[in-house]
Amino acid sequence: MTNVTLWGLGAMGSGIAKLLRQRNIGISSVWEQDQTKIGRNLGEILQDGKGAGHTVQEASEVFDAPFGILIVATGSTVPEVFPLIRAGIKGRQHVITIAEEMSYPWAQHPKLAEIIDQEAKANGVVVLGTGINPGFILDSLVGFLTTPCMRVEHVFARRVNDLAPFGPTVLRTQGVGSSPAQFEQGLHDGSIVGHIGFTESIHIIGKMLGWTVDRIEQTRQPIISKTARETPYISIEPGQVCGCNHQAKGYVNGQCVISLEHPQQICPEAEGIDTGDTIEITGTPAIKMNIKPEVPGGVGTIATAVNVIPKVLEAKPGLRTMADIVLPSCWGTL
Amino acid sequence: MTNVTLWGLGAMGSGIAKLLRQRNIGISSVWEQDQTKIGRNLGEILQDGKGAGHTVQEASEVFDAPFGILIVATGSTVPEVFPLIRAGIKGRQHVITIAEEMSYPWAQHPKLAEIIDQEAKANGVVVLGTGINPGFILDSLVGFLTTPCMRVEHVFARRVNDLAPFGPTVLRTQGVGSSPAQFEQGLHDGSIVGHIGFTESIHIIGKMLGWTVDRIEQTRQPIISKTARETPYISIEPGQVCGCNHQAKGYVNGQCVISLEHPQQICPEAEGIDTGDTIEITGTPAIKMNIKPEVPGGVGTIATAVNVIPKVLEAKPGLRTMADIVLPSCWGTL
Repeated sequence: MTNVTLWGLGAMGSGIAKLLRQRNIGISSVWEQDQTKIGRNLGEILQDGKGAGHTVQEASEVFDAPFGILIVATGSTVPEVFPLIRAGIKGRQHVITIAEEMSYPWAQHPKLAEIIDQEAKANGVVVLGTGINPGFILDSLVGFLTTPCMRVEHVFARRVNDLAPFGPTVLRTQGVGSSPAQFEQGLHDGSIVGHIGFTESIHIIGKMLGWTVDRIEQTRQPIISKTARETPYISIEPGQVCGCNHQAKGYVNGQCVISLEHPQQICPEAEGIDTGDTIEITGTPAIKMNIKPEVPGGVGTIATAVNVIPKVLEAKPGLRTMADIVLPSCWGTL
Repeated sequence: MTNVTLWGLGAMGSGIAKLLRQRNIGISSVWEQDQTKIGRNLGEILQDGKGAGHTVQEASEVFDAPFGILIVATGSTVPEVFPLIRAGIKGRQHVITIAEEMSYPWAQHPKLAEIIDQEAKANGVVVLGTGINPGFILDSLVGFLTTPCMRVEHVFARRVNDLAPFGPTVLRTQGVGSSPAQFEQGLHDGSIVGHIGFTESIHIIGKMLGWTVDRIEQTRQPIISKTARETPYISIEPGQVCGCNHQAKGYVNGQCVISLEHPQQICPEAEGIDTGDTIEITGTPAIKMNIKPEVPGGVGTIATAVNVIPKVLEAKPGLRTMADIVLPSCWGTL
C-alpha cells in the first residue's frame, strides 16, 4: 500500500511497528533517540518473528520516501512533535501522530497549527493526529453517534478505565499513591496533569456539530480510596489517592453543551466500579450508548494510528482531524 | 447551504421536509404522485408553522437546480428509484435516497449500480443511499467501531425494535397477526419479507473491513407470542405471530464472519424483551456495545438523510456509500 517511516519505538511505537509488520506494510526506516535501540535491527527489538527488518537509526530530520507515511509516536504536545512533523512535510510525507494535542492542534497552539496546515498544503500532504482518546471514544465516536439525530442539545461522555497495567510515569502524572494534600500540591506545580486531550476532544465535537465552543472548564479531583489497592507497580492504603477524576465542560453562549469525564484510577473493581465507555446524547432522539469494558487504550491507539492510513492517503492535503477523513475502520485482517 | 428538491411526501419525506425547514434549508421544489397533495403548498401539508413554501408538483422528470440536492424518499428497491435518480443526475443534482437497496446497490443490482455510477461521474455529482438501517446501525456504525481494533475475526450486530407504532402495511410485511402456517405461506409467496437491507449491510461491512463476502444466508422465523398484545392497529392472541425474527450471515471462504439479527415485533416488553442496538466485535480487542433503547427508525432515517448533506457536497462524484463519505454527524442545531 505504502511505505511507513516510524519515529519512536516506545510502547506505542513498538506496537505500531508490530501491527504494520503483521499486515505486511513496508517500514522504510525507523528513527529513535534511545541509544540502546540505535543500530539494532527492528526484528531483534520487537521479537515478533517477522524477520530482521531495518536497522534503527539515530534521530534525524532527513526523510526520503515522498508520499509515504511518517508515523510520529513520541510526545503529547504540539511543540514536542512540531519539528518532526515539519521535517516529514518537507520530505513530502503524510504524517500521522498520536501526540494527544495534535488531534485538534488549533485548540492550544493555533499558530503552530496554521504553519503545519500551510506547509502541508504547499507540499501536497496530509497531517492527522489520532488515537483512542483524544481521537475516538470521547470525540469522533460521539459526533458520529449524533448522525441519526434531528437535534442535539447536549452531549455527555465518560470513559472509566483501570490504570493498573501502567508504570510509574503514568501513575505519577495521575497522582496515584499521593496523599490528598500532595495531590493538591501536584496539581499546583504541574506534576499531576490527569488526562491530556479534553480541550481537543471538545473542539472536535464542536466542529462536528457546528457549535462554536467559547469556553472550556476543567476540574481535577483526587479519587481517594476506601480500600487497599495493589498493582505490580504500586500499593496504596485507604485514604491515599488511587487516581484522578478529570472532567471538562464545553460552553456555547454561556450554556454547558458538552460534558466529558475521564476518571482514571488503579483497580476500580476494588470498590465495585465497572470500567466502560458511555455516551449520552440529549436530543431528538436521545441516545444512550455503553461499551463494557472500555476499549483498551494502548491497543486502541496503536490500531487507530494504523487503521487511518488508507483514509489519510485519500484525504485533501492540509492539517486534518478525525472529523475530516472518510469513515475509518479496521482493515487488512482475516 | 444548498437547495433541495424533494421527491415524495410520505411519512419519511414529510419528516425530511420539516427538518429541512427547521434548519432553514431552501426547498426549491417538491414532487409527489399522490393526487391529494399535488397543488397544495408545503406548509399546509406539513402544518409546521414555517410558512407556505412551494406548491407540491405532479411527478416529473424535469429537475432544474444544478448542483443542488435531490432527496428521493419513495421506494425500497433500486429499480423503483432508478428512474428518479437518473433524472436527478441528468439535471446535475446530487442525489440522496433512503431506498434501502441503494445503501449498497451493487449487492443486488450491479448493472443498474454501474449505470448510476458512470452517469454520476460524467455529470460531476454524488449519489448516496442512506438511512438508519441499512446505512447506520447494522453497518457503518459496526465498521467505525472496529477502528481501534488490531484484528477483527467476526462481527455480530442485533437490532431489537418495537413495531407497535407502525401501520397495517408494515405489520403485514412482517407477518404480524398471521398464524404460523400463514407466516410460512407469506414467506413463500413473498407477502412477508422481514427486513430489507441485510444484503446491503453485510456488503458495507465487508467493504469497510476489506473482506470479500462470497455468500450470504438469510433466515426468517415467526416470533410466536405467548401473550396477548395490542397496538392501535392490531390485536393478537397467544399462539399468533407477533413479528419476524430475520437473521443474516455473511461468509468469507466458507467461514461465517458477519452475523446480523433484526427481530421485529409488536410490544416486545409484553414478554420482557428490551429493545436496543447491540454490536459485538470478536477480535483484538473485543468490543461490546449497547444502545438502549434502540435508535428509533423513523426519526433516525429522516435525520440521517438530512445530516449527510454536507458530506455529500464534498464527496467525490460517483455512486457512494456511507463507507465513502467523511464522518457525518448532526449539524445546524443549538
